[in-house]
Order: sequence, then structure tokens, then C-alpha cells
Amino acid sequence: MSRSHTQNCPVAASLNQLGDMWTLLVVRETLNGVTRFSQIQRNTGIAKNLLAERLATMVVDGLLERHDIGLTGVRHEYRLTPKGRALSPVMVAISQWGNAWLFDKGREPIALVHRKTGEALGPLRPSTTSGEVISWRDVLKIPGPGATASQRKHFASRKSTKE
Amino acid sequence: MSRSHTQNCPVAASLNQLGDMWTLLVVRETLNGVTRFSQIQRNTGIAKNLLAERLATMVVDGLLERHDIGLTGVRHEYRLTPKGRALSPVMVAISQWGNAWLFDKGREPIALVHRKTGEALGPLRPSTTSGEVISWRDVLKIPGPGATASQRKHFASRKSTKE
Repeated sequence: MSRSHTQNCPVAASLNQLGDMWTLLVVRETLNGVTRFSQIQRNTGIAKNLLAERLATMVVDGLLERHDIGLTGVRHEYRLTPKGRALSPVMVAISQWGNAWLFDKGREPIALVHRKTGEALGPLRPSTTSGEVISWRDVLKIPGPGATASQRKHFASRKSTKE
Repeated sequence: MSRSHTQNCPVAASLNQLGDMWTLLVVRETLNGVTRFSQIQRNTGIAKNLLAERLATMVVDGLLERHDIGLTGVRHEYRLTPKGRALSPVMVAISQWGNAWLFDKGREPIALVHRKTGEALGPLRPSTTSGEVISWRDVLKIPGPGATASQRKHFASRKSTKE
């Protein structure tokens, strides 16, 4: 980390401890519907040159699409691609962790609710493809189809492989 | 990012695009049951001086506890605290995103399954406190009890506040 975020936000507070993740702050803004450089810059506090560099990287990585919306000049909008939008679970997981562990009870900066009913979200819980909700401790990590031979060997040599 | 990870792992691959998150690699290792400096160092490829600094920070931040297990000298084990262990949803969310978006179908390096039945995990889905499973698009972010006045004003001025 080169610096600490000072925003009153569980995501930003998490990032102070989880690493230098300016990218996820840009994802936060674009998930919020913010599309313009100046507004992303204002809401995140990222230095302009760093933000320009980061946005370009995010376009190359396929997280953002840049659209020219200039009528009489160059004006750009940044919008999340499906790949970028698919970071919602990561953002919600980080938000819930930050709320739970970095702020006192009753001091949480944001709340997550069901858009239609206003009911509060519960903590994320994993479930199997058949829909059975299980505990985090019952999530087991195993080699996937693309695991290397050495990864398979590494897994096989472990007694316990908790995610 | 000062460098790219080259491991065949969806978490590491995500971090190449999501930011410099050595900390989460240490969380990954400790969730896997790895406790020793040398093994964390080997499995992550973090430079020793950087890892020492990072582990110390993680202890200060309350993510890890350092235990002296030396019988005839100094030997340390690093174990996740409940706060550190609570990062499981973040790790699973990042793993699933990486698997889905950074690897071709059938080339996923890891798989997540139910420890007891072996059934594959489905993608994380949010649910309300009453247990209703909803879509990511229906997750609404609103000011929490600890939101500042300017945050409340900012939210009120937005038409749409999607998480």
C-alpha cells in the first residue's frame, strides 16, 4: 500500500488492510452508475494520472468499456462489461466483511438491502448447485480440470484443504 | 501492481487485474492450513523481506496471530484470527470470478465443493435475512447507520445506487 484511504466506507477500509486495490474502487463507482472520469476521480480521490492509467488497464483487461459520447468534442464514458459487473459478489463480500470487522456495531457506513422489499441482506452463504446452503467451513477446495500435475500432487499431499 | 503473479490459480490471476493483494495470498495460504513463514514464502513467491513486513502488518491488523512454537529456539506459526477467517466469502467470490472469467471452460485450476458430499458449489447468490435468494441486480446499497451527512446527501442525489 502506498497510502491509506480515508473514506467512511467499508470497501475502502477493507482495502487499507487487504491491499492496494484502486481497481475495485473504480468498480465500486461504475457499479454505482458513475461513468465519467471527473466523477470517478472525485469519488475515489485517485490521482488523475494514476486513474487514467488504471482505467486504460481496466479497458484492456475487459472490465470496462470506453464509449465516446462527445457530440462536439471528445467525451468518454466508462461502463462495466459483463466481466466487470460479475465482480458484484466480490464487492458485496468485501463490503460485508468491512462492515462487520472494521466498524463498530451501529457505525456501519453502508447497508445492503433487497431493492424491491427493502429487507436487509444476510451474510453471504455458499450453496451447492442443487441449492443446499452450507457453511463456509464445509467449502472444500480441490484441483480443477485445469490444475497442473504439481498442483494435484500438492493437494494430494495435504491432509486438509480448507478454502 | 509492481509485478504479475504467474501461478495457475484463479485467485492469483484475479489479483493481476484486481490489484496488488499479497495479503489475500497469505490469507489463501493460511486458510489452506499453512502456518510457517517458509512455506507461505514458497507457496506465494513473495520476497522474504516483503512477506515479513506483510505478516507483521497482518498481525497488527488482527488478521493473523503469531504463536511461538519453539521448543528449543524461536519458531513461529501464523494462524488466522476469526477476523481473518471471515475473509472466506471474499476468497470464494474472487476464486469463482477468476475461474469464470480468466480461464477457459474446462481449464479452471481449482474447484470448490461441499466437503461432505463432494457436490460442486454454485455461484454465490445473495439472500435476505429471511432467507430469500435474490439476484445481484436486486442488491441495493443504502447509507448505513454510520453514514456521514454528506454521504446521505450524495445517496439522496442519485437516481440509482446499485451495488
